[in-house]
Amino acid sequence: MTADFQDWARSHQVRIENSLQTLLPAADVAPERLHEAMRYTVLGGGKRVRPLLAFAAGELNKANEERVTIAAIAVELIHVYSLVHDDLPCMDDDVLRRGKPTCHIEYGEAIALLTGDSLQSLAFQLLAEYSLADTPKMQLEMIRRLAQAAGSRGMAGGQAVDLASVGRTLSLPELEFMHIHKTGALIRAAVMLGAYCGSRLDEAQLAALDHFAKCIGLAFQVVDDVLDAEATTAALGKTAGKDAENNKPTYVSILGSKRARELAEELRREAYASLEMFEAAAGRLRQVTDFIIHREF
Amino acid sequence: MTADFQDWARSHQVRIENSLQTLLPAADVAPERLHEAMRYTVLGGGKRVRPLLAFAAGELNKANEERVTIAAIAVELIHVYSLVHDDLPCMDDDVLRRGKPTCHIEYGEAIALLTGDSLQSLAFQLLAEYSLADTPKMQLEMIRRLAQAAGSRGMAGGQAVDLASVGRTLSLPELEFMHIHKTGALIRAAVMLGAYCGSRLDEAQLAALDHFAKCIGLAFQVVDDVLDAEATTAALGKTAGKDAENNKPTYVSILGSKRARELAEELRREAYASLEMFEAAAGRLRQVTDFIIHREF
Repeated sequence: MTADFQDWARSHQVRIENSLQTLLPAADVAPERLHEAMRYTVLGGGKRVRPLLAFAAGELNKANEERVTIAAIAVELIHVYSLVHDDLPCMDDDVLRRGKPTCHIEYGEAIALLTGDSLQSLAFQLLAEYSLADTPKMQLEMIRRLAQAAGSRGMAGGQAVDLASVGRTLSLPELEFMHIHKTGALIRAAVMLGAYCGSRLDEAQLAALDHFAKCIGLAFQVVDDVLDAEATTAALGKTAGKDAENNKPTYVSILGSKRARELAEELRREAYASLEMFEAAAGRLRQVTDFIIHREF
Repeated sequence: MTADFQDWARSHQVRIENSLQTLLPAADVAPERLHEAMRYTVLGGGKRVRPLLAFAAGELNKANEERVTIAAIAVELIHVYSLVHDDLPCMDDDVLRRGKPTCHIEYGEAIALLTGDSLQSLAFQLLAEYSLADTPKMQLEMIRRLAQAAGSRGMAGGQAVDLASVGRTLSLPELEFMHIHKTGALIRAAVMLGAYCGSRLDEAQLAALDHFAKCIGLAFQVVDDVLDAEATTAALGKTAGKDAENNKPTYVSILGSKRARELAEELRREAYASLEMFEAAAGRLRQVTDFIIHREF
């Protein structure tokens, strides 16, 4: 990671954090406990990978950063809601997330359920409330994209496949299907929403960008599996080794660590290739790609 | 209830059911079990009060019925998602809904959680995907309204207040605050979204309509409490007497049945008064109001 990228990432993480502080309901507004729980789960945590992708995609076509901030936050809120629900006892039953007790450990299951539900609503509220694209029609397309990415044929659908896979042996294509939905759909939405905030891209550019996003979505998950298998709980800020413990199929359990790392590298090359037509304008997207593939937590 | 209204209600309930059949993902599309659960919870049930309100509001300003159908379905999907999550063991822990086993009894808690999550996403996807208002900008306003009504300062917030109220004595204003959020917000959204599908109303008309919607939202809940206290489980299609059993404050526990029925009647008169400026065009809204107040299930 170059120092230039570190500065950029840091400043955009701060921008996201500050905007979230303002956009989330204050903890002294009724219902206080729910708002407190929403702030607890969203603020001060995470690498903000999806927002960084949205900002980097926005640099392709000179998107206004205030617009991208809202779009990036909407995607991040969907991501955090999914973590809160995923950690519930009826799902992964996890107690640690981003180095803190999970939402239901801190606030109880009922409030955690409502926290996730409310974060999803807030994401769509923000996308509808602010002016984010050159036309309201394009903005509707952003909402449609995010809703589809979040729903049963996107992220939530991927979680359903994940549930059904516990204890089963999956083939590599089945594992890929699961992750394209569970993680990939939202990462694609982050990239596309960032780009929609800027000047219009042509069909070929949108297709290339979408293929780029698919590649890094998968690469992200492959690296996640490697880290889950190899890193410590302290380094991850969430419980390590959960996949093996839960008997969940992963890229590491199917391919082994070495081959999984190679696969991540292949996906990185394919992602880079998709960006060629953008030349220098895709510099930031290349840096975020490297960050995703070479991260250690 | 007049025969004319019964025919109208029946034909619009059928319209909603048929459109839901098409708009919900097919049960043979992956992930099959999730899609099956979504169809199980949404199809073939309920009085569709919120959709009927949207259609009746649409008649104020000659809204296209295909537009109103999509808007009405979006509101209904938010309603059904809230029922699915509300029935979960960590919330009301209920086993019967609309005369059938609740979603988590039939499909397990994890799938029920994802079913609710996916229905919420689908609601916003539909609102963004179809052309529903005279301008895309007005359509963004519809999305913003529904998202706000569903979120922490609307329905989900009302549920959080409800949770916190179990076993406590609430004052009448506190009870009203809870219901204005828990049930009222979504009923208001149903009315306003129906009206947004038609030609533009002026500020005074929108304000009157909003006040109408607030009154019937509260009236709906008052009647619900009376029915929960007095009707049988078989007649309701959901477990009767749950409120008293859970030691939940209700209009009946605070006011008694007789006074609660009088309150519903007062709210009906106030709702009617708000509709005066619309004259004959509000005929259908008056009928739905009577239906809500005088229903027996």
